[in-house]
Amino acid sequence: MGRKKSRKRIKRWSPAGTLPGTLVAHAEAGAEPAQIHMFLYDPDRCEERVLRPEEIPSLFIPEKGVLWLDIWGLSDTGVVKAVGDLFGFHPLALEDVLNIPQRPKVDRYENHLFIILREVTYPVETEQMSMFISDRLVVTFQERPGDPFDPIRDRLRKGLGRIRSLGADYLLYSLCDAVVDSIFPTLEKLGEEVETLEETVISTPAPETLREIRGVKKQLLEVRRAIWPARDAISELLREDSDLIQPGTRVFLRDCYDHTIQVMDMVETYREMAASLVDEYISSVSNRMNEIMKVLTIMASIFIPLTFIAGVYGMNFDHQASPYNMPELYTQYGYPAVLFVMAATAGGLIYYFRKKRWL
Amino acid sequence: MGRKKSRKRIKRWSPAGTLPGTLVAHAEAGAEPAQIHMFLYDPDRCEERVLRPEEIPSLFIPEKGVLWLDIWGLSDTGVVKAVGDLFGFHPLALEDVLNIPQRPKVDRYENHLFIILREVTYPVETEQMSMFISDRLVVTFQERPGDPFDPIRDRLRKGLGRIRSLGADYLLYSLCDAVVDSIFPTLEKLGEEVETLEETVISTPAPETLREIRGVKKQLLEVRRAIWPARDAISELLREDSDLIQPGTRVFLRDCYDHTIQVMDMVETYREMAASLVDEYISSVSNRMNEIMKVLTIMASIFIPLTFIAGVYGMNFDHQASPYNMPELYTQYGYPAVLFVMAATAGGLIYYFRKKRWL
Amino acid sequence: MGRKKSRKRIKRWSPAGTLPGTLVAHAEAGAEPAQIHMFLYDPDRCEERVLRPEEIPSLFIPEKGVLWLDIWGLSDTGVVKAVGDLFGFHPLALEDVLNIPQRPKVDRYENHLFIILREVTYPVETEQMSMFISDRLVVTFQERPGDPFDPIRDRLRKGLGRIRSLGADYLLYSLCDAVVDSIFPTLEKLGEEVETLEETVISTPAPETLREIRGVKKQLLEVRRAIWPARDAISELLREDSDLIQPGTRVFLRDCYDHTIQVMDMVETYREMAASLVDEYISSVSNRMNEIMKVLTIMASIFIPLTFIAGVYGMNFDHQASPYNMPELYTQYGYPAVLFVMAATAGGLIYYFRKKRWL
Amino acid sequence: MGRKKSRKRIKRWSPAGTLPGTLVAHAEAGAEPAQIHMFLYDPDRCEERVLRPEEIPSLFIPEKGVLWLDIWGLSDTGVVKAVGDLFGFHPLALEDVLNIPQRPKVDRYENHLFIILREVTYPVETEQMSMFISDRLVVTFQERPGDPFDPIRDRLRKGLGRIRSLGADYLLYSLCDAVVDSIFPTLEKLGEEVETLEETVISTPAPETLREIRGVKKQLLEVRRAIWPARDAISELLREDSDLIQPGTRVFLRDCYDHTIQVMDMVETYREMAASLVDEYISSVSNRMNEIMKVLTIMASIFIPLTFIAGVYGMNFDHQASPYNMPELYTQYGYPAVLFVMAATAGGLIYYFRKKRWL
Amino acid sequence: MGRKKSRKRIKRWSPAGTLPGTLVAHAEAGAEPAQIHMFLYDPDRCEERVLRPEEIPSLFIPEKGVLWLDIWGLSDTGVVKAVGDLFGFHPLALEDVLNIPQRPKVDRYENHLFIILREVTYPVETEQMSMFISDRLVVTFQERPGDPFDPIRDRLRKGLGRIRSLGADYLLYSLCDAVVDSIFPTLEKLGEEVETLEETVISTPAPETLREIRGVKKQLLEVRRAIWPARDAISELLREDSDLIQPGTRVFLRDCYDHTIQVMDMVETYREMAASLVDEYISSVSNRMNEIMKVLTIMASIFIPLTFIAGVYGMNFDHQASPYNMPELYTQYGYPAVLFVMAATAGGLIYYFRKKRWL
Repeated sequence: MGRKKSRKRIKRWSPAGTLPGTLVAHAEAGAEPAQIHMFLYDPDRCEERVLRPEEIPSLFIPEKGVLWLDIWGLSDTGVVKAVGDLFGFHPLALEDVLNIPQRPKVDRYENHLFIILREVTYPVETEQMSMFISDRLVVTFQERPGDPFDPIRDRLRKGLGRIRSLGADYLLYSLCDAVVDSIFPTLEKLGEEVETLEETVISTPAPETLREIRGVKKQLLEVRRAIWPARDAISELLREDSDLIQPGTRVFLRDCYDHTIQVMDMVETYREMAASLVDEYISSVSNRMNEIMKVLTIMASIFIPLTFIAGVYGMNFDHQASPYNMPELYTQYGYPAVLFVMAATAGGLIYYFRKKRWL
Repeated sequence: MGRKKSRKRIKRWSPAGTLPGTLVAHAEAGAEPAQIHMFLYDPDRCEERVLRPEEIPSLFIPEKGVLWLDIWGLSDTGVVKAVGDLFGFHPLALEDVLNIPQRPKVDRYENHLFIILREVTYPVETEQMSMFISDRLVVTFQERPGDPFDPIRDRLRKGLGRIRSLGADYLLYSLCDAVVDSIFPTLEKLGEEVETLEETVISTPAPETLREIRGVKKQLLEVRRAIWPARDAISELLREDSDLIQPGTRVFLRDCYDHTIQVMDMVETYREMAASLVDEYISSVSNRMNEIMKVLTIMASIFIPLTFIAGVYGMNFDHQASPYNMPELYTQYGYPAVLFVMAATAGGLIYYFRKKRWL
Repeated sequence: MGRKKSRKRIKRWSPAGTLPGTLVAHAEAGAEPAQIHMFLYDPDRCEERVLRPEEIPSLFIPEKGVLWLDIWGLSDTGVVKAVGDLFGFHPLALEDVLNIPQRPKVDRYENHLFIILREVTYPVETEQMSMFISDRLVVTFQERPGDPFDPIRDRLRKGLGRIRSLGADYLLYSLCDAVVDSIFPTLEKLGEEVETLEETVISTPAPETLREIRGVKKQLLEVRRAIWPARDAISELLREDSDLIQPGTRVFLRDCYDHTIQVMDMVETYREMAASLVDEYISSVSNRMNEIMKVLTIMASIFIPLTFIAGVYGMNFDHQASPYNMPELYTQYGYPAVLFVMAATAGGLIYYFRKKRWL
Repeated sequence: MGRKKSRKRIKRWSPAGTLPGTLVAHAEAGAEPAQIHMFLYDPDRCEERVLRPEEIPSLFIPEKGVLWLDIWGLSDTGVVKAVGDLFGFHPLALEDVLNIPQRPKVDRYENHLFIILREVTYPVETEQMSMFISDRLVVTFQERPGDPFDPIRDRLRKGLGRIRSLGADYLLYSLCDAVVDSIFPTLEKLGEEVETLEETVISTPAPETLREIRGVKKQLLEVRRAIWPARDAISELLREDSDLIQPGTRVFLRDCYDHTIQVMDMVETYREMAASLVDEYISSVSNRMNEIMKVLTIMASIFIPLTFIAGVYGMNFDHQASPYNMPELYTQYGYPAVLFVMAATAGGLIYYFRKKRWL
Repeated sequence: MGRKKSRKRIKRWSPAGTLPGTLVAHAEAGAEPAQIHMFLYDPDRCEERVLRPEEIPSLFIPEKGVLWLDIWGLSDTGVVKAVGDLFGFHPLALEDVLNIPQRPKVDRYENHLFIILREVTYPVETEQMSMFISDRLVVTFQERPGDPFDPIRDRLRKGLGRIRSLGADYLLYSLCDAVVDSIFPTLEKLGEEVETLEETVISTPAPETLREIRGVKKQLLEVRRAIWPARDAISELLREDSDLIQPGTRVFLRDCYDHTIQVMDMVETYREMAASLVDEYISSVSNRMNEIMKVLTIMASIFIPLTFIAGVYGMNFDHQASPYNMPELYTQYGYPAVLFVMAATAGGLIYYFRKKRWL
């Protein structure tokens, strides 16, 4: 995750002082061509097509209905530029589409809004979702294929709910909501990771446990960085009073806003749990260490006096030179007595240690 | 608490991109049918009935008086839908009723308010209380039977206080107040747990103590997550200037708001106490460990020099080869002298350790 | 402090759902009757009387002058109710008078203000001061006899300053100011405790020291919980634009507000000092422990090589079997040489440890 | 710093309930008489005089020009009262002049402003600077002689810059700016202390180091408590829209405000550095301790097996009773072989420890 | 970094009370003369010249076009003063140009804005960028040669983009954007340092690692102190409603503002990572220490009982005095049996330790 990623990231920033609005393909973008999906719908019908880049200039928004252009892959600067030119999107917004990663945000331009959100997949990786909304037009740019929009496409195709009869703003809401809701399963999995770690920390703490905790914390941090600004962005959409967002859509956006808050709530809870995991890990490790040291030290403490006693009777004082010199060695039960004394000493110590609840 | 809960929670979220307002029965809801209680009261009378689901469509709000529909159990989506259709509640609000857990909040819709609070019982478990208020109508959805509303029902039945003469907003306030006040006994019990742990931490710290502290902290965190947004919700109700909340009710809501602040105050105090418990636990454990290590190390330190002395006189230097070789072994009082030296050494060390206050 | 207090506190909360405004005597209130003191003053005179509960209904506010009713003891619900009925105080406010403890706050009612502050005495215990102000009327309820109001009573009796010529709002300010100022001596004493503990922590740290630190922290926390909301309450009084607080009194309230900020400042400083005391305690204890372990380990390290040397010459290799077997034992100066080697080893190690600054 | 200071501080607070505006000489004030310096200037001239207390009542503000009364020493309540009476300063403000220490603040009165700032000298001690500004009048009260105002006096005397042609508000700004700027040298010295401690912590950590860190932290805390409210005070002056502060002076006050922010910035940086010093101290101490323990434990670990080997060959099994009993003792090269085995064991262990990078 | 820097910084502050607006060359400024670069451009042409100080007074802003004066080096107070006099810049602003370091900020003066930002280079060093904008005029003062403005100069020279056709505010934006964007590469390098340290901390933690972590933290702190106020400054520029900033430029400033937020985001992420590095370092070090202590203690624990056994059979109880005295010594397989017992004991202990997972 570390090294390689940061190498790439270096190239993400255009050199300071670059002409604003310069469109440069992203270093990570790869060479595969962009895929352009078009949905054109009104209450009565839904046309779906895959476009070739050359077809873009000939696109137009029909008098009735909504056009949704969904572009996967950002390697082809030409596509981004062509779309931007056709619909009059601001160069700075187009720059942000390519200049990955951007923080989630809402930018107001004269006749369009530019929204950036981040999709989060598990194991945590984020993908920038850049969306433009204009009169009866929604354009979405995604870093790569794969998104949580399939149920929306289905609803468009089959005319489920009122999505075809409501305007571009409702489509935009549906997309935002899908992006936000796609974070929940990821969070659940992170939550399970945290809970598994809680058990690991107590049962079998190891240096890798700490590394895994750090891994989860980093992932949670990344989710947090995706959702915090997203909340602000959706709150701004909610208070947006341009014609692009109709009052009726606001109640849906508010619901979406509630979801961002729920995500944040869960993220913060898991972060707090992960943070306390580190303390528990340290406490658990030092507990085990203490346990070991204690038992061993006690073992040593029992044998040290015994060894001393054996040492005493290993001294070579000459009994012949004086009757005071180690007379014990020449008594009949000297040896058994000493063995008994040793056993008694050991037993006494063990009893004492038990009484002190050290064993 | 861990594993099982998170498994369940996974199913709580509708897949991203689902049609907003889709009503799906909650995975945890179980199969038992919903119980529907109806109170219909005006200053003069109070009618109380248990309804069958089929009776819902025929309900109506009489010209005079207030209708309170209290529904227990969320397994039957049909009931929720029927109630919502009858009174024109917004589909997103109905979705939130079923999509448990939601954060406490107040949502304004055209002609009704939607309030979510969380009841907290001990050992800490929360239950979502979803309430709708409309003109002369209050509808409450609870996850399961059992609530703190019995005294209110009693007051309705017996016409105690002015509850029957005041409007739906006063009933709403009474319900909110009951939910908030029901947290106090739980908090008291958590407070007692914290205080018990304070003593345990000092007298008999054990790894389980840490686990219990974590348990209390988690419970406090859950109470906090129930009460923080509840405070905001009630504060919003307080500033609500629709016709649904009358000015005279505001002074009661302010009182309820004060209670949420008191709950938060207690939660924060207990959390702070619980947080410092971890430090005290660590300090207490390492204190005991130090105590053990110190005594044992001192014991070892006393015997090590003695064993050395014994070792010296266990050497086999040949006295016959040279009079300089260990003449002590051949003196008359060599052995008693050595024993005395050993005792003196031990005594001296013990005296020194005592003077240094290490013993 | 722990157990007993929490037991009592449990009974403080009326059961959830109780009729709002229900007046119940407080469990802690005891049975002694309430004492009612009346001050009736105008610029020219000051009447002071002790009333019997039966006299309350016949009280009235004279056309000129201010009436101060000061009630000690909350055991008699009837007194509270009688006073409330007579002057039209709101039932919720009266409930708060009895429902101890309440957070300091200001509640506005139609024609009166209700202020709660907390008196703090040393060792930290708080007492709820509930005050009502209405047109030419101040009513104060105290939990028990004993308050910091004597200088105010004196000024009323002797007509010192302008207290008799200014209105009820000036009396209210004087009471609030007295309550706030009464915290300073307590804080000073807590400050001295903290400073004493700072010395103890370094000179003679013991487990009780930690408990004392926790005690001071709890007391500071309690002061903080008394003063934080008091600051907000007084700030609200300051911005209150009812007729009850005259513009001329505002400059005095601002002064009182400054005092609450000074108290908070001191509390935060002491809290910060107390918090760092825990770190210092831990550091001091582990320092002493390290000191012990170091000296003992060094002692062991010196004797271990010496014991080894003694062990070598205690081996029983048979010199007669081979001249290579321990010839040292049969040299003339073998024993003195070994003793010298031992002394040199010990000396060398001590020198090395000293050079390494381990001793 | 501890004990003595807190004793004094106790007397600083007038008893709770004291008549507001009571002027009592400060306990610390000492008996030396107040020194009163008068500057009277207009663009053309500058009169400078030392006044006797009796001269105060005869002072007056000339039609043209500004009067600056600078009073050192607060022992003489009469002087404060006389000045207050003459210019109509509010009694609460005069009380704050004497009631040291007050937090920096700005109080608005009908026709004058009252500003309190704190001068900070090194080693950190603070002095209260109380300033009144009224129409063409500035009065400053200082706790004791010695202030950072000399360059201002010089500019007044010599007519440098525009100070004589601008009004009292410009003089006030100059004084505030001088007080704020006088904190910079103190901060520099604290910064140097912190940097010296950073080196000490790594090279020669000792318990006193911790005490010095605490000392610096306390000093930084005191500076912080002087500058935080000062920033608010100057910000209030800046937004003050009375006639006393002219619009042209605002740009200067904004500059002064910037300086307070710079001071705060430095204080916070140093505080953060000091806080991390404690961690580094602990880490450094435990590092040294670990180093010692490690070396000693390794030493013990090398000698323990050797001592065991020597012990084995010190056993007295009787070779004559059986040829299996310790035949090694009777071989020709038994002793050298054992010595070699011992050396090899020691070498092997040292090699192993080095390979494990424990040595 | 420490000592030397702080010495210099002392001289940065003019003594308290100095005449505001006094221009003093900065102590660090050195003696090399200032370099003055002039750009004079309109949509059609771009004149570029290096000026001598004497030429400044004869400068004027042509009726059409924008004048950019870019001054490197602050040693020559005369140049600053001459430029300030010519264009009427406020003395306090000019003082801030010379009084390095200032916090990033925006100051409004009557007909010009004064902006301070900080360029950040790697290894982290900051340089103050002081910018004035007035009608068709931009003046920039830099501490020393070397800046991120070359791409802007290029665009001016070659007429790339619309920079020549837009006004002074667009130039100002371009300069600000270049300063902000120049922080990204520095941050990337700090990010790499953090990631390298993450690996070092786990693989080879050493006291220097801690010092390096501190170094990175200090650098991140410095970046943070450069960018936090810069964000506020650019946000102020964004909301500035003077004629100097045209509405069309706002969308660019908003983009620049987004960049400051991105920088802050990265800084905070790296700071959080660096902070957790300290914990990991401590955990990693104590882990290694524990590992060592554990192995050694276990080794000691195995040999201590063995040594005891050897000690027992080294005792000199006289078998001839009594058959009970150490008969084992005279059995045929005594010695091999004891060796076997020793081996069995060691094996048993090792097995036990392995089973307990201590080995």
